[in-house]
Amino acid sequence: MREVRAEPLTAAAFAPFGDVLEAAGHPDKVINAGWCDRFHDRARLDFGPGGRAGISLFRARPRSLPYECAMLERHPEGSQAFVPMAQMPWLVIVAPDESGRPAAPRAFLPAEGQAINLHRGVWHGVLTPLADPGLFAVIDRIGGTPNIEEHFLDAPFVVTS
Amino acid sequence: MREVRAEPLTAAAFAPFGDVLEAAGHPDKVINAGWCDRFHDRARLDFGPGGRAGISLFRARPRSLPYECAMLERHPEGSQAFVPMAQMPWLVIVAPDESGRPAAPRAFLPAEGQAINLHRGVWHGVLTPLADPGLFAVIDRIGGTPNIEEHFLDAPFVVTS
Repeated sequence: MREVRAEPLTAAAFAPFGDVLEAAGHPDKVINAGWCDRFHDRARLDFGPGGRAGISLFRARPRSLPYECAMLERHPEGSQAFVPMAQMPWLVIVAPDESGRPAAPRAFLPAEGQAINLHRGVWHGVLTPLADPGLFAVIDRIGGTPNIEEHFLDAPFVVTS
Repeated sequence: MREVRAEPLTAAAFAPFGDVLEAAGHPDKVINAGWCDRFHDRARLDFGPGGRAGISLFRARPRSLPYECAMLERHPEGSQAFVPMAQMPWLVIVAPDESGRPAAPRAFLPAEGQAINLHRGVWHGVLTPLADPGLFAVIDRIGGTPNIEEHFLDAPFVVTS
């Protein structure tokens, strides 16, 4: 089975797929009389025509590595941000699009304190915490359409550490 | 000095001020072939005229109890959600409005796994983690106006546990 080695998550490596949200480098603003750093407006949100922003909570059962991935999905009408609500390891799988199908997948291991925002229409694996509690806030499109496309791979792949 | 005792955060007690976001009770939807519970669209977001949703990260230095509070603020043009990115204790201070000024303050201690969304215009204290890393994702209004009103109290109060 094809093997995809998980890479550390960095803004540069993830740029083709979305935003890495992290309190890194200089804050854009220091607020609350010096007590708080604000890293301002770090996600390219896009809720498409007729959509609006919503916050949902996802609680997923943890998986483990090596992790076999047989399906990728995408949301054609909106971006989707995942904010971990605990400092647990998790896995992010994405793939570039090639003629309406996912091409070579990539896998990333976020560091503690990193969140992501998948840009509209980016192929990705389902939410994959690697430990409890598997709890995330998800900022995505609320709208009246299904807004999901699933692609079952001819050949599943396995993500390794 | 006036003393305000911090209460456990519950959706019912917090309802006059905003939403409690938590993976409690039955999920609205089970997704990802049974692996993930979705608690759907749990925040009453409101970004006012000319505003849009943004995700920022706030990293605040921790405070401790008893905590003296001398200032409350509000955002007249938008809601503001705080999602803790670690399972640390934190404090939420809010107050009802009375003729344009904050009236009797309340203080809440969220449980692990709880986030909040302050409704537009609700008086609140600054972000108050009670331990490191003090890291939060903040979903609030991005716009061209200051969108903040500060009220310095004639008589500060102290929050106790």
